[in-house]
Amino acid sequence: MSERFSGVHWMLATPFDEDENVDASSIVRLMDKAESSGCSGVVCLGVTGESARMTDDERRQVASQVIEHANGMPVTVGTTAASTKACITYSQEAEKLGAAAVMVAAPSMAKSNVNVLFNHFQRVAESVNIPVVMQDYPQASGVQMPTGFIARVGQEIPNVQYLKLEDPPTPSKITAIRKLIEDRLTIFGGLGGVFLLDELSRGSVGAMTGFAYPEVLVEICTNMREGGRASAEPVFNRYLPMLLFEYQEGIGLGIRKHALHHRGLISCAKVRYPGSEPTEEIRQEFLDLIRDIEYD
Amino acid sequence: MSERFSGVHWMLATPFDEDENVDASSIVRLMDKAESSGCSGVVCLGVTGESARMTDDERRQVASQVIEHANGMPVTVGTTAASTKACITYSQEAEKLGAAAVMVAAPSMAKSNVNVLFNHFQRVAESVNIPVVMQDYPQASGVQMPTGFIARVGQEIPNVQYLKLEDPPTPSKITAIRKLIEDRLTIFGGLGGVFLLDELSRGSVGAMTGFAYPEVLVEICTNMREGGRASAEPVFNRYLPMLLFEYQEGIGLGIRKHALHHRGLISCAKVRYPGSEPTEEIRQEFLDLIRDIEYD
Amino acid sequence: MSERFSGVHWMLATPFDEDENVDASSIVRLMDKAESSGCSGVVCLGVTGESARMTDDERRQVASQVIEHANGMPVTVGTTAASTKACITYSQEAEKLGAAAVMVAAPSMAKSNVNVLFNHFQRVAESVNIPVVMQDYPQASGVQMPTGFIARVGQEIPNVQYLKLEDPPTPSKITAIRKLIEDRLTIFGGLGGVFLLDELSRGSVGAMTGFAYPEVLVEICTNMREGGRASAEPVFNRYLPMLLFEYQEGIGLGIRKHALHHRGLISCAKVRYPGSEPTEEIRQEFLDLIRDIEYD
Amino acid sequence: MSERFSGVHWMLATPFDEDENVDASSIVRLMDKAESSGCSGVVCLGVTGESARMTDDERRQVASQVIEHANGMPVTVGTTAASTKACITYSQEAEKLGAAAVMVAAPSMAKSNVNVLFNHFQRVAESVNIPVVMQDYPQASGVQMPTGFIARVGQEIPNVQYLKLEDPPTPSKITAIRKLIEDRLTIFGGLGGVFLLDELSRGSVGAMTGFAYPEVLVEICTNMREGGRASAEPVFNRYLPMLLFEYQEGIGLGIRKHALHHRGLISCAKVRYPGSEPTEEIRQEFLDLIRDIEYD
Repeated sequence: MSERFSGVHWMLATPFDEDENVDASSIVRLMDKAESSGCSGVVCLGVTGESARMTDDERRQVASQVIEHANGMPVTVGTTAASTKACITYSQEAEKLGAAAVMVAAPSMAKSNVNVLFNHFQRVAESVNIPVVMQDYPQASGVQMPTGFIARVGQEIPNVQYLKLEDPPTPSKITAIRKLIEDRLTIFGGLGGVFLLDELSRGSVGAMTGFAYPEVLVEICTNMREGGRASAEPVFNRYLPMLLFEYQEGIGLGIRKHALHHRGLISCAKVRYPGSEPTEEIRQEFLDLIRDIEYD
Repeated sequence: MSERFSGVHWMLATPFDEDENVDASSIVRLMDKAESSGCSGVVCLGVTGESARMTDDERRQVASQVIEHANGMPVTVGTTAASTKACITYSQEAEKLGAAAVMVAAPSMAKSNVNVLFNHFQRVAESVNIPVVMQDYPQASGVQMPTGFIARVGQEIPNVQYLKLEDPPTPSKITAIRKLIEDRLTIFGGLGGVFLLDELSRGSVGAMTGFAYPEVLVEICTNMREGGRASAEPVFNRYLPMLLFEYQEGIGLGIRKHALHHRGLISCAKVRYPGSEPTEEIRQEFLDLIRDIEYD
Repeated sequence: MSERFSGVHWMLATPFDEDENVDASSIVRLMDKAESSGCSGVVCLGVTGESARMTDDERRQVASQVIEHANGMPVTVGTTAASTKACITYSQEAEKLGAAAVMVAAPSMAKSNVNVLFNHFQRVAESVNIPVVMQDYPQASGVQMPTGFIARVGQEIPNVQYLKLEDPPTPSKITAIRKLIEDRLTIFGGLGGVFLLDELSRGSVGAMTGFAYPEVLVEICTNMREGGRASAEPVFNRYLPMLLFEYQEGIGLGIRKHALHHRGLISCAKVRYPGSEPTEEIRQEFLDLIRDIEYD
Repeated sequence: MSERFSGVHWMLATPFDEDENVDASSIVRLMDKAESSGCSGVVCLGVTGESARMTDDERRQVASQVIEHANGMPVTVGTTAASTKACITYSQEAEKLGAAAVMVAAPSMAKSNVNVLFNHFQRVAESVNIPVVMQDYPQASGVQMPTGFIARVGQEIPNVQYLKLEDPPTPSKITAIRKLIEDRLTIFGGLGGVFLLDELSRGSVGAMTGFAYPEVLVEICTNMREGGRASAEPVFNRYLPMLLFEYQEGIGLGIRKHALHHRGLISCAKVRYPGSEPTEEIRQEFLDLIRDIEYD
């Protein structure tokens, strides 16, 4: 397991201005925050990064700027696409830009077929010289990845080295995968960090997620590594209301960007339309919440 | 608002024995627990009650026994069906058995149509003399209920008096509904109680949910009513890890029944096949969790 | 292959009166039509039979009456349920009533798991002494049955003898299954007969479907058996516009019942609410269509 | 109603070579065929064009080449995107390239909301000076467009002039829309032409679809216009088996490209992975079919 690929890889939101254009200056601040928070790396162009809502040109722009300001942190670039060919094109572009890894979820498929899925990941993995993070996120992709499929990928495609696991219940799935292939795949959690404690207990090495307070995720991971669950649990429990608040279905990204804006990390909390913005009540609840748990 | 229809209405699990037959004696213990925990009422034959996995005869048996042991608590009986006709038949049967209310979710529909949905609820509501709890649970029904539809039901169908709201983000939806029709519909939360605190803040009167520790839900609701959010929040936060653990997608009911069995409330934790049973690791995590938060 | 289980097994609509109650007298006429049309058997309580919209008591009533008037034809009874336990109860009841077979689709599952699915079919198949028709209809069940799973059932569960295949493209799937297990499973088509010709060419033995003109399906199957595709194709093509008209998504059953009513086979075309009724325009188009292809 | 926007607008497949790269020379042949077949226009970058499987650069390349070889025919360019911002960018690019119209389907939305959907179309329509074809294709977009929503768009957004209707049953929906707004929206059918005859009878002006034999669609539309349904119906019925064969779920595009290749219109039948290719049996059935109906 690489030192660099453990702990917290912060999923970056893509900052937009009021006109929904990419806001380059906020990217710099997000990267500074990632570093000062003790993140091991960052991931751009995932769901949190609103990748699907951007043009290819914009995606290239964001990946370039993130890599430019990485300051030594490994940058993973999301390159999920609906075809193997397009995914390869995006992945090779990311490698040329200097990405440390690419993150690839299943392409949407009318009928799920694990052999076809395997071929997709194999062809993508063979097309680049950097490792692939396979993302298992059926809620977004619509494609289930059975444990046996994941194990087969881990055993037969050397270049798929990491798994971002977001198929709940994630702790159980971590155990099931590790029973089959031990640590052949290095597993990261996601899902806003809501299940981080149990995921680490089951054998994940950290989280690739975009919670607006990455230092909290880092603290949980560090305590776990140094003091075990007894040390990590109080921290996790203390911040759980905040993790859960941000995790709310359908408005999570809006809350997250609102929190990032509140912290001064991005200049504008805008989500690309038709993404949902938090209401005034939600923004107030957020403020009450961070006051109640004595944060900031 | 009725006194009886506020606070906690505990969603009853249906206890089965090792052969997956209904276990009548455990029903008695669950009812005793509901009463001793301070629940205002109970609900049987919902998703937690594995209603969809039972025959009509078994459903009748469960409803009869629950009502027989209600000891004054109002019993709401789930009567959701795929047709208006069948829903009416079940609802009238429940009324005859002595139900205080019936709970009805949307019938599954190839294409959602709010006018058709309205007619369904109207015909059902007019067929009985007890109130209807409309359940808004799109994850189970596949049918979205827009806020405007819910408001129309509240205004035009007098017999639909309660709303069990399980369409996240629930706090925002409570506010949106109350802006349209104030408290014309009395709103209960569900979803295992995971969003209970914010739901109460937004104007729900309580929860209809099946968390294995109903006294915790009661304590939260009581504190909220008597001391406001400042009083309820510490209780909620203390138990949040347990609420969240039980809420895990796909295995929540298995964990819940395991917890009920652990507490001696049901004789057997069996979930009807093909429902999922918790693994050994999950059962151990549950034990660690209740020890860590110093419960029991 | 049984003589009795080939050719056309007519899927029976459940006739309702204006009040949506089961209309027993129309069942007799449907059974007479099945026999006089040359059907080899009938199937009741499928999707066409609006099984999901009926109570258990009504389902028992329909199955009894169909079997009573079967006049020697084998009757297959749909016993699909959301749990293995309930499916077994329904299947054993059907056997006692005199069913020749039971038809079972996959129970809806949060996450599809072929091993769990296998166990479901195995337990059901072992619970009765009559054969099981496995229905592969993902559009209704939400569950995909991969070819390898179907082959495994065919090889390892002796009592599952028939497959009602409704997972398009059906001709390709028939070939794929037969490559794995030859005719270990006797395959019937469904889907309103729209793909019947190619299905027969690929090795199905007939159709279990509810097209309102069963004599047309019988003629196609008979011509295929006696004269090959060259003989069946002109018949199929002649009636294809009618097959396709009835097959229209969302309103197919309403059209089918309207056609049955037009033919005098049922007294009332009512579909249980919230099922869709054909509009006046559709009813007129239907009349034009049967006139155009010189039927009746 | 524009003369140019009626009859058949052929949905172009995007031809790829064996390595899945765009094959420019085949585009020229497809355009020649569109013209010689009597098509009124063409549409590129739709589902048939595998738009979702291509990069933005490739999409620009295809749109350019199609427009370059349009020879006077209006070219509609698909610009559907997951965000309003990206859809506007693509639409303005298409206008600059010389597109006669852009085709826009609903962006995928976690929860369908007709007001949000309305805003999306309004903002896109106001961003360009060419008309918008609104595509109603819930099977691909996951978003239902109620009739009332479509009528509102037709009345309130002047620049949305055309509707490509692919929400079955399409004939009924055409009637329902026209009852509300007459011919404020010019309606085209799609869905491979399988319901073309009834769609034209109900008031559509033609088809935007990719059936590999566009001259057949043109003949049906022409006969309808000149001789009424009595003239069009025999043509439609004659080719219905071919229309239906190509329409098979999941493999339709593979069959279509195979047919285009068989006709010499594209050099290679390749579908971008993981799209499905027809098996040997399907290719043979296709050959038998076109021989049987005496085509070519």
